[in-house]
Amino acid sequence: MATTVLWSINRTARATARKCFLPYSKGALPVDSQRALFHNISVHSRLTSLPTARWAPKVTGVRFISHGTAGKTAPARTTRGALLFAGAAASVAGFLAGVIHFQRAEMASVIPKAGEEDNTEIAAKCKTFMSPPCTDVKVLQQRKGEMSTRMEMLIMETQAEFCRALEEVDGGKFQVDRWERKEGGGGISCVLQDGKVFEKAGVNVSVVFGNLTEEAAKQMRSRGKVLKGKDGKLPFCAMGVSSVIHPKNPHVPTVHFNYRYFEIEEEDGTKQWWFGGGTDLTPTYINEEDAAQFHSVLKEACDKHHPQYYPDFKKWCDRYFYIRHRDETRGVGGIFFDDLDSPGQEEAFAFVKSCAETVVPCYLPIVWKHLDDAFSPEEKDWQQVRRGRYVEFNLVYDRGVKFGLATPGSRIESILMSLPLTAKWEYMHEPPKGTREAEMQEVLRNPREWV
Amino acid sequence: MATTVLWSINRTARATARKCFLPYSKGALPVDSQRALFHNISVHSRLTSLPTARWAPKVTGVRFISHGTAGKTAPARTTRGALLFAGAAASVAGFLAGVIHFQRAEMASVIPKAGEEDNTEIAAKCKTFMSPPCTDVKVLQQRKGEMSTRMEMLIMETQAEFCRALEEVDGGKFQVDRWERKEGGGGISCVLQDGKVFEKAGVNVSVVFGNLTEEAAKQMRSRGKVLKGKDGKLPFCAMGVSSVIHPKNPHVPTVHFNYRYFEIEEEDGTKQWWFGGGTDLTPTYINEEDAAQFHSVLKEACDKHHPQYYPDFKKWCDRYFYIRHRDETRGVGGIFFDDLDSPGQEEAFAFVKSCAETVVPCYLPIVWKHLDDAFSPEEKDWQQVRRGRYVEFNLVYDRGVKFGLATPGSRIESILMSLPLTAKWEYMHEPPKGTREAEMQEVLRNPREWV
Repeated sequence: MATTVLWSINRTARATARKCFLPYSKGALPVDSQRALFHNISVHSRLTSLPTARWAPKVTGVRFISHGTAGKTAPARTTRGALLFAGAAASVAGFLAGVIHFQRAEMASVIPKAGEEDNTEIAAKCKTFMSPPCTDVKVLQQRKGEMSTRMEMLIMETQAEFCRALEEVDGGKFQVDRWERKEGGGGISCVLQDGKVFEKAGVNVSVVFGNLTEEAAKQMRSRGKVLKGKDGKLPFCAMGVSSVIHPKNPHVPTVHFNYRYFEIEEEDGTKQWWFGGGTDLTPTYINEEDAAQFHSVLKEACDKHHPQYYPDFKKWCDRYFYIRHRDETRGVGGIFFDDLDSPGQEEAFAFVKSCAETVVPCYLPIVWKHLDDAFSPEEKDWQQVRRGRYVEFNLVYDRGVKFGLATPGSRIESILMSLPLTAKWEYMHEPPKGTREAEMQEVLRNPREWV
Repeated sequence: MATTVLWSINRTARATARKCFLPYSKGALPVDSQRALFHNISVHSRLTSLPTARWAPKVTGVRFISHGTAGKTAPARTTRGALLFAGAAASVAGFLAGVIHFQRAEMASVIPKAGEEDNTEIAAKCKTFMSPPCTDVKVLQQRKGEMSTRMEMLIMETQAEFCRALEEVDGGKFQVDRWERKEGGGGISCVLQDGKVFEKAGVNVSVVFGNLTEEAAKQMRSRGKVLKGKDGKLPFCAMGVSSVIHPKNPHVPTVHFNYRYFEIEEEDGTKQWWFGGGTDLTPTYINEEDAAQFHSVLKEACDKHHPQYYPDFKKWCDRYFYIRHRDETRGVGGIFFDDLDSPGQEEAFAFVKSCAETVVPCYLPIVWKHLDDAFSPEEKDWQQVRRGRYVEFNLVYDRGVKFGLATPGSRIESILMSLPLTAKWEYMHEPPKGTREAEMQEVLRNPREWV
């Protein structure tokens, strides 16, 4: 296994680097410079998040030289995962008068480039997953440099890490289902139902390919992605990790995340690719401390890549998880982004990786904190009403669900795994003024800034 | 109030009449002849369904001369309502060698033509409704001959009759909410929640008008209705009665019906109008006798108007209430039709009226029959899983819900009143072979003929 290093950087240099290196649109930097920059970040991140859980401080053989942000630890930053992200951000260094240089602190020559990790490493990682990956390990090894392989490894790791953290808190075990899609690809669904802590916890990975139907393509086009198919067909590959966790206790919020990658081949053979994703929180009752912690972990992950990512993707999240017919958001938000194809593939992947690495530190501290909170039947009832709204959002508006339901051969149980075990629709339910239920509703109608 | 009569007819004459009088497309008969024919049917039906409940044998001053079908009483035909429908069918008489004549049995001269009932009668009817109608009574009196008035009276009557029949069986009272839509129109929502028999029973009337949004218009166009608006706007008027009844006992099925009328003004000022509707049953467990009775009542109502209505609308119902992503129907079906604008407005209205009059005899006998059936927690659980599927259909596919959610100013509580009080989504729920749950699923996957 290659040795990994981190570079030192001062905060001013990093801030300058961010402004210059990570514009939203492609082309603001020479492509090679961008690639070189993010090669290093992603290699670092990949190597430091090896076999054992990324979140627990167990990885050996990795040296940290992290300055600047390390001293500014937010509540959630007490985890090693969060420090790692700060470290990754700190790898942007040596910015000088518009010319890009990378001043590696030490041992730069032993850092492998993207895709150059050895096959033993891929095999070793795969053994830590909830199941062998969707794609055959040998194929992954052969195509180790390709983005689809790197993304598949990331989503498998994210699934394993999150499931194990949830099992630890619940005491139950995930049921693991591998499934194949006859049109191409398959997935691994992990579900823990009716546990001690979780009513229904689902963490799903899927890697599917084939041809997009007109209807599914329309779902894409609806967000401005104009794609020209050959004879109406668009060969595609889509992969992602997605999760929805519905706890039993109404004081433990529901969380959802999804990180995904698409490749579509157009009529002329060119490949379109983009990333999407996000993490958002849906509490039954407002807890400002929880919301602030959740958002601050996400903000840190975003800030490492671009200062506009958090504010923009936070707004996007509020806009996306909006139940239009109720004029309310689904929860207290988080981040959401889609069609991310800039500034370059490496940079976008590095950002998605940072986000995926936050899922445990975003959520688990909140679960541990409220696990044993007392609750009344009325509070449970309000939770059930909110679960009803969750169902409304997922079935009426959610793009992933719509895409899944419209894609022949989709595994419906995995797509609808996001629905709660139970939900309620009371006619004309309106919480009385001054109650905590009314407070929740007020926040859903007027999204707040949390950090 | 005008005196009402029924005409005698023999079955052969009626069957011949059906074949010749009621083609699907316009123009198979001279329009005037069609209109005359249906004038009489609809006037008859209207007058015999006066103030007290149509279903209960309380109306006085009405003489029955009903032959042929009366002797062939199906189980549901033990109700007066069912006999009335047979009577209405029997009004098609005196068909002779392609020339249309109506041989009124007696007192033909006192039967008023459509729209000629007096204002006292409208006022008297309105007093029997769950609430004053959406449109002011004086306006209804001024426009008594118009289809929109006649339809509004019909939907208000249907609501009142059905609500009272449900109150009788449940012992509870409907909560009646009148609401206004600021863009134009309003409605009356009647909901009985957490009753003795019904978990959630909703019977909703709405009469809305305004301009169709592009999105709402698209919902219409999706079924082939191409409409040209002025500056993208389409003035419309839509009204209907709709109901979903979710009982507590898993052996009492859920029922749904909806009868509606649309008018849309196109760019050039021409009015497009059409009717839609249907009634369908969603049991938790298969009961062949119930399904057969339910369908036979609907078939009788259809057969009075066209021999192809029942077979065609039964198929349409199976196709429409189909949860594509589950590859199963929502229940055991019934009838469903839409965009009905032939053979003429009178004929279409008469058919819709016959259908609306079946809602009580279709459903209430089944409720009374299974009201006290014992059930296990497992059976209740299976009901909750089926309720989840009901939610899936309503939120993902139901055209009425989609139209409502996309129409600004819609009253969401009334639209989503159709959702059950509680529902469940168990991951990978699959009933074991040979169970009654598996039998239900088999029927949902392979719709049967029930009559």
